[in-house]
Amino acid sequence: MENLKEYIQSNSQRFLDELFGLIRIPSISSESKHKDDMVTTAQYIVDQLLKAGVDKAEIMPTTGHPVVYAEKIIDAAKPTILVYGHYDVMPVDPLNLWDSPPFEPEIRDGKIFARGAVDDKGQLFMQVKAFEYLVSSGQLQFNVKWMIEGEEEMGSPALAKWLPGHKELLKADLILVSDTSMIAINIPSITVGLRGLAYMEVEVTGPDKDLHSGLYGGAVANPANILARMIASLHDENNHITIPGFYDDVLELSPEERADMARAPFNLDEYKKKLDIKTTLCETGYTVNECTGIRPTLDVNGMWSGYTGEGSKTVLPSSAFAKISMRLVPHQDPHTIAALFARHFESIAPEYVKVKVTEHHGGYPYVAPTNTAAFRAASKAYETTFGIKPVPTRSGGSIPIISTFEQVLGIKSILMGFGLDTDAAHSPNENYHLECFFKGIETITWFYKYYERELKDQNV
Amino acid sequence: MENLKEYIQSNSQRFLDELFGLIRIPSISSESKHKDDMVTTAQYIVDQLLKAGVDKAEIMPTTGHPVVYAEKIIDAAKPTILVYGHYDVMPVDPLNLWDSPPFEPEIRDGKIFARGAVDDKGQLFMQVKAFEYLVSSGQLQFNVKWMIEGEEEMGSPALAKWLPGHKELLKADLILVSDTSMIAINIPSITVGLRGLAYMEVEVTGPDKDLHSGLYGGAVANPANILARMIASLHDENNHITIPGFYDDVLELSPEERADMARAPFNLDEYKKKLDIKTTLCETGYTVNECTGIRPTLDVNGMWSGYTGEGSKTVLPSSAFAKISMRLVPHQDPHTIAALFARHFESIAPEYVKVKVTEHHGGYPYVAPTNTAAFRAASKAYETTFGIKPVPTRSGGSIPIISTFEQVLGIKSILMGFGLDTDAAHSPNENYHLECFFKGIETITWFYKYYERELKDQNV
Repeated sequence: MENLKEYIQSNSQRFLDELFGLIRIPSISSESKHKDDMVTTAQYIVDQLLKAGVDKAEIMPTTGHPVVYAEKIIDAAKPTILVYGHYDVMPVDPLNLWDSPPFEPEIRDGKIFARGAVDDKGQLFMQVKAFEYLVSSGQLQFNVKWMIEGEEEMGSPALAKWLPGHKELLKADLILVSDTSMIAINIPSITVGLRGLAYMEVEVTGPDKDLHSGLYGGAVANPANILARMIASLHDENNHITIPGFYDDVLELSPEERADMARAPFNLDEYKKKLDIKTTLCETGYTVNECTGIRPTLDVNGMWSGYTGEGSKTVLPSSAFAKISMRLVPHQDPHTIAALFARHFESIAPEYVKVKVTEHHGGYPYVAPTNTAAFRAASKAYETTFGIKPVPTRSGGSIPIISTFEQVLGIKSILMGFGLDTDAAHSPNENYHLECFFKGIETITWFYKYYERELKDQNV
Repeated sequence: MENLKEYIQSNSQRFLDELFGLIRIPSISSESKHKDDMVTTAQYIVDQLLKAGVDKAEIMPTTGHPVVYAEKIIDAAKPTILVYGHYDVMPVDPLNLWDSPPFEPEIRDGKIFARGAVDDKGQLFMQVKAFEYLVSSGQLQFNVKWMIEGEEEMGSPALAKWLPGHKELLKADLILVSDTSMIAINIPSITVGLRGLAYMEVEVTGPDKDLHSGLYGGAVANPANILARMIASLHDENNHITIPGFYDDVLELSPEERADMARAPFNLDEYKKKLDIKTTLCETGYTVNECTGIRPTLDVNGMWSGYTGEGSKTVLPSSAFAKISMRLVPHQDPHTIAALFARHFESIAPEYVKVKVTEHHGGYPYVAPTNTAAFRAASKAYETTFGIKPVPTRSGGSIPIISTFEQVLGIKSILMGFGLDTDAAHSPNENYHLECFFKGIETITWFYKYYERELKDQNV
């Protein structure tokens, strides 16, 4: 591994050029107009993987956007690592808040600014480049399979359906994923918990058409006002969610576990300053890290009704809409929660409106063990490149497919992410530190090395 | 007047062709991209007025969209009628709910379907055609002035500023307006009261950028949820508005006045059926007609936040917005109410968000006397063409400029409207009954006749 740093350094410009080519394709999975871009992106990944040294790579159709599958089998008797990543990205609106066009990557202040820079094109590319180094230097000691999907930002609906028919193809000892964050650029961490997700869309309808607010206002229930009232009632004064049964399956952590979590470095003043907020708003009785890590939440992700253009329009809208998602923790079941939400939302609808509730994708929460060869190997790899032991953390985010992998394929994942909370994933001006990108390639390479040793030690 | 009906009938196709030419120009005053269309529309009006027989007509600049001024002075000693109308129209979204393009007028079921069909191009045109008949038949006994503006749907901000400098030019005995509705096609009515308007826009901001709802949800206040909570709190359980001081200046009607109002024909079941609603939502203690006529209200006209596109996006939005308007009754002052709203909305904002409140146009409520020559003449005119005496009504709508006319010019208005509640003014599929259009021309012509007689009787 003595020439690893040198290899990265001497190839750094090529790595970035190749990554930028990937980023430039606007692969927004949730917008149907980008359907062709998804295929173009998948083909780009195929080409990159072939260049990096896989034996074969192909675009496999699914019920939605295609999956890229690739493999390098060095010896059927050796253990297999299945690398998972996603080539799709989030929508980019509001576009006017971007300082540079989202699909024209630009380096400023040592960071790559672009949609997908960190989530997940940049992180996926670290995996490709670590693999490339191991292959080209003749040090690869694992069979490596690749499963790169195009619907992660939609909750991986097609991949979830595709998995059961490809269990044999995907057989592996471990799934390796780079799609999460670290605590800070100098405080590495390994994500050992992910929240689940239930995502709902609601429509509240009053009169059958938009009305003149002067002629009808005061007598006809306004669905925007009613929706506001219904949303407001979903939390109580302790910011506790009021849906009956919502907390029934929530795993309550022991005082010891909570004390352990509280040792993770956290500066509330910096947190507030970074977000430009005066105070946080947590569930009573829980800290910020607990509220984003071990407690379920309910957030409006979108809301719209009536006239939203320039100036004024005196309309009493016919309908009001909201996208509302809930982050879930072990052992909440997203389908159970979605059903509880729907039943509750319908039950609180007053008789002067009609309510329609639909369910978008969901996902189960996930917990990873820390007493495994993979965790120990990852921990050593971070320590080697960052100089300090990584902290095991529970992320507030969701990668629903990770728990599906466990359920369907029976394989655990190791989440080696190198993003930062400040990367603005899902937001305008998404960015990725070049330092994280290059250190990530190094760390992943070390992981292969240490994982090999850990497995050997286990078998002694 | 014996050939009036015949004149209308033999010219009906030309009247419609000329009106359709006016309707085809998309004069949406609140959308800046239509700036040029406003001037084109004003010029069209000028041409039509000249053809109808005015001595002169011109486009006069204002601080906003221009005003069309025209006049026919037959004798300086004779009384003067100032006709007011507006050539601007409301926005047309949501466009997908229109059965035919909003600016391509189409006749179906005896109605003209188009934006502006009734509000106010069709109604304004009745005035032009009644005038044309009187001029061409040599029966005009008044000086007639015209003031047709292009910002009524925005609350007439430029006209209000333009008026004080043109008092001499606008000198008149009465303002004649066709921009209101009747109770039903067989129950004519004259509007004697209009509600005022205070129109606000609010912005609730949490974090300084959109955040990942997984990483931050549960710890950072979501401005969409907070806005919902704030809007919900603006009404209490009796649908009473909770802004302190809001009702202080409301004129309470006597039991006799309320009993008188209650005699207007109204069928609650038909009302609900027409709107496809199960129940109405009124302020406790007041009827539907009272809630839309003599009580002030508060409605969300628009609301937006976060991701409103297709599919799902797990975003914790940075900001949430709403357009909120209040309909006012005598003697509420729109500026006082706007200030009360702003102070209250800011006061209920929790410390974890920032709130910005801005005021759009407003307008004073208006009450017209019924013991005047103009009212008696209008009443007789409706009775002549419709066969029954019109009912004096208070409209829930607002024409803010009407009270400004009284304040600035010292002239009362007579509101001879021929629209119907079912015309979908401000909504998709706005329409205007051909029967109302042609009867309106007839009624307005009779009004000139009866008004002349009433004034003569007064002077005897």
